[in-house]
Amino acid sequence: MTILSFFTRASSRAFNGYPLSSKLLLLSSLSLSGGGVVAYSESQADVSKTSVQTNEKDRKKKRVVVLGTGWAGISFLKDLDISAYDVQVVSPRNYFAFTPLLPSVTCGTVEARSIVEPVRNMMKKRNGEVRFWEAECMKIDAANKKLLCRYTVENNSVGNDEFSLDYDYLVIAVGAQVNTFNTPGVLENSHFLKEVEDAQKIRRSVINCFEKAVLPGLSEEERRINLHFVIVGGGPTGVEFAAELHDFVKEDLVNLYPMVKDLVKITVIQSGDHILNMFDERISCFAEQKFCRDGINVQTGCRVISLSDKEITMKLKSTGEICSLPRGLVVWSTGVETRPVVKNFMDQIGQANRRVLATDEWLKVKGCEDVYALGDCATINQRKIMVFPFDLEFIFCNINFVLVETTELSTNNDSYFSIVFLQEDIAAIFKAADKDNSGFLTIKEFEDVIDDILVMYPQVKHYLRTKQLRAVTDLLKDSRGNHRDEVDIEGFKLALSHVDTQVKNLPATAQVAAQQGEYLSKCFNRMNQCEYNPEGPRHFKGSGRHQFRPFQYKHFGQFAPLGGEQAAAELPGDWISMGRSTQWLWYSVYASKQVSWRTRVLVVSDWTRRFIFGRDSSRI
Amino acid sequence: MTILSFFTRASSRAFNGYPLSSKLLLLSSLSLSGGGVVAYSESQADVSKTSVQTNEKDRKKKRVVVLGTGWAGISFLKDLDISAYDVQVVSPRNYFAFTPLLPSVTCGTVEARSIVEPVRNMMKKRNGEVRFWEAECMKIDAANKKLLCRYTVENNSVGNDEFSLDYDYLVIAVGAQVNTFNTPGVLENSHFLKEVEDAQKIRRSVINCFEKAVLPGLSEEERRINLHFVIVGGGPTGVEFAAELHDFVKEDLVNLYPMVKDLVKITVIQSGDHILNMFDERISCFAEQKFCRDGINVQTGCRVISLSDKEITMKLKSTGEICSLPRGLVVWSTGVETRPVVKNFMDQIGQANRRVLATDEWLKVKGCEDVYALGDCATINQRKIMVFPFDLEFIFCNINFVLVETTELSTNNDSYFSIVFLQEDIAAIFKAADKDNSGFLTIKEFEDVIDDILVMYPQVKHYLRTKQLRAVTDLLKDSRGNHRDEVDIEGFKLALSHVDTQVKNLPATAQVAAQQGEYLSKCFNRMNQCEYNPEGPRHFKGSGRHQFRPFQYKHFGQFAPLGGEQAAAELPGDWISMGRSTQWLWYSVYASKQVSWRTRVLVVSDWTRRFIFGRDSSRI
Repeated sequence: MTILSFFTRASSRAFNGYPLSSKLLLLSSLSLSGGGVVAYSESQADVSKTSVQTNEKDRKKKRVVVLGTGWAGISFLKDLDISAYDVQVVSPRNYFAFTPLLPSVTCGTVEARSIVEPVRNMMKKRNGEVRFWEAECMKIDAANKKLLCRYTVENNSVGNDEFSLDYDYLVIAVGAQVNTFNTPGVLENSHFLKEVEDAQKIRRSVINCFEKAVLPGLSEEERRINLHFVIVGGGPTGVEFAAELHDFVKEDLVNLYPMVKDLVKITVIQSGDHILNMFDERISCFAEQKFCRDGINVQTGCRVISLSDKEITMKLKSTGEICSLPRGLVVWSTGVETRPVVKNFMDQIGQANRRVLATDEWLKVKGCEDVYALGDCATINQRKIMVFPFDLEFIFCNINFVLVETTELSTNNDSYFSIVFLQEDIAAIFKAADKDNSGFLTIKEFEDVIDDILVMYPQVKHYLRTKQLRAVTDLLKDSRGNHRDEVDIEGFKLALSHVDTQVKNLPATAQVAAQQGEYLSKCFNRMNQCEYNPEGPRHFKGSGRHQFRPFQYKHFGQFAPLGGEQAAAELPGDWISMGRSTQWLWYSVYASKQVSWRTRVLVVSDWTRRFIFGRDSSRI
Repeated sequence: MTILSFFTRASSRAFNGYPLSSKLLLLSSLSLSGGGVVAYSESQADVSKTSVQTNEKDRKKKRVVVLGTGWAGISFLKDLDISAYDVQVVSPRNYFAFTPLLPSVTCGTVEARSIVEPVRNMMKKRNGEVRFWEAECMKIDAANKKLLCRYTVENNSVGNDEFSLDYDYLVIAVGAQVNTFNTPGVLENSHFLKEVEDAQKIRRSVINCFEKAVLPGLSEEERRINLHFVIVGGGPTGVEFAAELHDFVKEDLVNLYPMVKDLVKITVIQSGDHILNMFDERISCFAEQKFCRDGINVQTGCRVISLSDKEITMKLKSTGEICSLPRGLVVWSTGVETRPVVKNFMDQIGQANRRVLATDEWLKVKGCEDVYALGDCATINQRKIMVFPFDLEFIFCNINFVLVETTELSTNNDSYFSIVFLQEDIAAIFKAADKDNSGFLTIKEFEDVIDDILVMYPQVKHYLRTKQLRAVTDLLKDSRGNHRDEVDIEGFKLALSHVDTQVKNLPATAQVAAQQGEYLSKCFNRMNQCEYNPEGPRHFKGSGRHQFRPFQYKHFGQFAPLGGEQAAAELPGDWISMGRSTQWLWYSVYASKQVSWRTRVLVVSDWTRRFIFGRDSSRI
């Protein structure tokens, strides 16, 4: 059942941009007419429409500007009712890229073109018009609800490259950039794997390493160095790239460069104790064993401290020892950080001290009106139900300070921020639940508010699952496990004291971004409707209900392809799957999740091509 | 019959690198075994083999170095008996590109990857070893039979980038570079269409022009300028690109950028009076009418004199008037010139004053031993049978000079060069034919040498065809058309006086290069055999026969795709074909001419994809 529902969801999640039947019809009509037939029936707008000035009719509609066309942005746009809003999209890329297949592009298992779909293509079939600008947002002016954008391509073109846009609602979905942790030499000497262009560049570079290594006049040591591929970061991307590279070398390149086949070395450097440490331990272990058999060198517990044009220098975390490795191609895949435009925006809205832009549970940016942020550029600041026990000492040290400058601090620093809310939350919940103001909460009273608690504080549900408690009321049992009929505020606090340990930041994955986009579009579509009929949980601190239910992430599982037609996967229901069959599951899921029939056909034919002809090693 | 033989030849010309059946077998075996099976059965050479030092066994073999992996080089390598030679290939590109499809790549009708095939892939199935170096030949040292090569990719790699190679035979097939005719601003401000990278760059730039043109804040005039695509050069490449671009705009881009569909303008600038002027007049005319209907602006009789970042300045040849056009993207496709490395080589061997490297009819470089040149980098200096009548005055002015310094001059200047030979040739032919030394040539005597004349002087055959003479002996008729039984030397000269008007340089096409490569490989394969049993025509000036028959070009026709599923073609037998059916002929021929089954499948599936889904407009 789990697998079935997983598939159903996965395939229903595909955007189905192009119904296949209509396309086949088009093909046959083209063939019959001898080709050259072009459908001009699309509604063709006037040139003046490209001006940012909207016409009278559109002025009545609220202006929504979406920044970014990644998973979050596109997923938001796909479900948004664009007849209800005046929608504009700003992105330096006029396409959506199916990023989970980027590692496959680096070695030519899949072509770059097969994983991209033009945004305009995806939008043109919609009722209404989405205006797209291929530009980069340089500055968000939250006070005036204005954006400064710039066309950043060097193209010898005429006309002003800069323009500004006004918005009523802003959706920030610009993603994040690679985090080098300020390691010296990384920007200059390594490859990243964030964009389609990065993957194409890596592909060319891998071939170049081989071509250089076989040239006459090099010593064997020099050949070895050129063929030493180093991947920094043992997360899913780094591991998948290492696996793809290993397959590329073993299945294709050794046949073309037989003279250096024994000199190739692949090293994965991971700062943690295991690669894939966000996965279940069994998967980490399986991956490490597989890599060991394949001869991929895994160095765990190492932090890269610098990268020169010839060497990579690392520090062993356990001993503090520093060592250097001569290296060929280096791919840096260690994590992400906030983009400059978002950083600047955070400065404006009082989030300067934070690492990542914070939103509330409704993806609304904290400290700012009408701005939403989703995907990798933001994190949800999940409200906590209680003070963590281990925070107590910290609170006592700072208590005066907190009490004095609450308002200002609350937006400046995560820790204070949480603390101030928490103290209020637990009391507010108790107060709201204790209808008869008896100072005691009965089971009945607790049951009345429990649904709202579960929606507002998903950590309660996680806590119950972790502790294997069956009913929420089990929380109220006393220390010996006996049922109690009622608890006072102190007992209530004690019962919920460990719940917040289950608060976790969502991972920076496509899955999270896509779900957030879908969620936000549903909110936008029912903005008016829910203003009068709010559907969210009750306000514990005030009266009435929240307008919408908060965003809740559903984890549908995660894959880690390990090369040699083997993969590992964490599936819903804590189910772990590893091996060949998982790789075929991976093929099915990734084919079904493609955003259009075009890319689906291309990706599948790329896989087939690889089986028949191998990967292409032309350096283009 | 003509069409049939054309097809047969076309398909037999395909290299058939991968037998399809074996690949399908591989696929099924891979599926059965669950994937991951890698064939390691290829002979794996030792690392030491990469050194340029050849081992003892190989030292006995003559070292052949091939520069370039284009049509000429690959066609030479494909048929060469590599077990008989120690073969090395030097090229900055590790792949062969099917250049006739480059214009299709510019607009995404065909993907770049679909028209390239790695050289190593093409070579690995051969009996013996071809060593390939991805490097550029920087200098040919003809005196010492040495080459200086350099690895030119910036890749942070270790080890010396330069190395030298010794050769016994050198085959220069480096092609040519774009000729800007020193027009100011062309290098900086225009695109070329020679390499795969050029085509990819044009594709991105076309999309960028559209994206820039729809941005807010531009005037209509600015939008128009950004969407003004200018193609300089009305040859097959320029015309095909214009046609492809027009189709891309009309079939795909107008649907995605409807607001600017009426602002797009395509201009073809041609210095001659007609576009496609190397084709039959009917084709030029058909193309011009087609372009006129499509709204493609054709400006003939215009020479571009400069190109700035905003404007293109032209001179009308008829009136001398100078005018400027504001322009968007400019593609420069006007002709080719010699590459620097070849120019330097020409300086060394006394061809400094020539525009193009000259070879004899056996593709051997004049003024140099054991060096052959083929494809676009060289021209065959076809020996002439007679002095051109219009050269007479020139000869009289220079006659003393010629007589004094014959040897030195003969390699320095084309005109002198020919003259000196010609005077000898006609006399030598007469002398060789006049067996009884009677001072008169009988029809019988003429018939005995006519086969050798036809082989050595193909212009005689062309002349007969042009004058619609049936038999060669018709040449000896007197001025009234009456048969003569014999002619003296003056009569013989008169009879052949106009033959040399038929001497033409071969066009810089893939077809010529491929035939030259094939021809040269056959010569190399029978080098020893023909040394003792020469198979060429007789030496008129000395005794014996030439070692090989000279290279003779067979024109199999030429296509000019004109967009909208229409094409024009010049087919063998002076047959002209135009329209839809010709486009389908084009599809068939180009599919069959692919160098491997892989590229064939990819190209055909690209065409199919375009019919179903249209062209991709993602800017990658």
